[in-house]
Amino acid sequence: MLVKNRLLNFKDMYIFQNDDWFTFSLDSVMLANFVTINLRDKKIIDLATGNAPVLMLLSLRTKANMYGIELQNEVYDLAVKSIKENKLSDRIKIINDDVKNLLSYFASDSFDVITCNPPYFKYKEGSNINENKIKAIARHEQELTLEDVIAISSKLLKNGGRLALVHRPDRFVEIIMLMKKYNMVPKRVRFVYPKRGSDSNILLIEATKNGNDGNLKIMDPLYVYDDKGEYTIEVRKMFGE
Amino acid sequence: MLVKNRLLNFKDMYIFQNDDWFTFSLDSVMLANFVTINLRDKKIIDLATGNAPVLMLLSLRTKANMYGIELQNEVYDLAVKSIKENKLSDRIKIINDDVKNLLSYFASDSFDVITCNPPYFKYKEGSNINENKIKAIARHEQELTLEDVIAISSKLLKNGGRLALVHRPDRFVEIIMLMKKYNMVPKRVRFVYPKRGSDSNILLIEATKNGNDGNLKIMDPLYVYDDKGEYTIEVRKMFGE
Repeated sequence: MLVKNRLLNFKDMYIFQNDDWFTFSLDSVMLANFVTINLRDKKIIDLATGNAPVLMLLSLRTKANMYGIELQNEVYDLAVKSIKENKLSDRIKIINDDVKNLLSYFASDSFDVITCNPPYFKYKEGSNINENKIKAIARHEQELTLEDVIAISSKLLKNGGRLALVHRPDRFVEIIMLMKKYNMVPKRVRFVYPKRGSDSNILLIEATKNGNDGNLKIMDPLYVYDDKGEYTIEVRKMFGE
Repeated sequence: MLVKNRLLNFKDMYIFQNDDWFTFSLDSVMLANFVTINLRDKKIIDLATGNAPVLMLLSLRTKANMYGIELQNEVYDLAVKSIKENKLSDRIKIINDDVKNLLSYFASDSFDVITCNPPYFKYKEGSNINENKIKAIARHEQELTLEDVIAISSKLLKNGGRLALVHRPDRFVEIIMLMKKYNMVPKRVRFVYPKRGSDSNILLIEATKNGNDGNLKIMDPLYVYDDKGEYTIEVRKMFGE
């Protein structure tokens, strides 16, 4: 069902969702909070943007020109509707196409920042048999792989530009290897833990195009729930409380 | 000055140190606690063993045959003295040689577990000018590099055998790349934080020789100090309290 929700607890921000097949996740919220944004950043793009939660949250942090690209028509429509609703159409443009076609829209070496909350799961024929098609494409690497994301980001970013990803720790080694392959140098990593004493289930990573090796920072852990099972203060702040 | 200290708070365990040039560190204690030890492990070696704190702590966890190798004569002497003092000479043998010569002592594919707390810092001519030679070699990659450690471990380990290292997070990407190069597959990582809210300053990593990719576990963070500036309960347990 199509619903218009308040975007977290931010006053006067709304997001359109369809809870049958696309709602944004906490992972997008954490990504929008994690990525480094500088005053001089002029051009930002969010890949596989979904209904554009990352861009809408980033609009609170930057005046840069922002872009999003979303392959699936139905999800693209939600993004456009949400951006119009929030009067952000002059600052955020959404493209309805495959991420792999981005170089026909933008010059290489032209972006300051790229964000992406990509599909987390490897695609195996039939592995997503219980999901509808829209959900499956958002979750499985059917149309977009991790390597696609890193390869195209490396082309689109300026030297020293930043790619921030949210992904799963069990694919961390692969992320590092692919970043190396495409001259993206990991600079900051933050592991997210559902609660104290648990293994990490999400990671946030930021890499710089053609940066210097050897200064990787492993940031303090981000806990989602406290010992009472409630959202931690840090997460509640991300929600605009 | 040569001193005989109690090994942490373990009853009847003693370690010889020379506080002018070699005392063991918390990092060794964390390594001895971190490494996976199975009942069927028969043969274990600790590389660049120093005064053998890792092996002595492991003697509380395993009945395997254990070996250590230490290049520096003076430090080797401390290790031998400590092992004799603790009546562990039948279970722990120390070799006074360069790690890179290990294949003249042992067959390849013969170890179940290897541990190492290697020199953390890259060696640059003159970079350790303020340290005495013994300290410098223990801290800088003058005689033993990270690549040496991973290369020789990959030769000495059985298939499925485990290498556990303690190192610094700013060299994490390099550790991952070198492990990949020598067919060591990272399986468990634990980041150590001096206290809540700080970046990680130490990492513990365990890799398996020729294991399957893609199951990396990022464990819960290990905090050294609590909010009062005292050792956390977890660290105090490692100390035998």
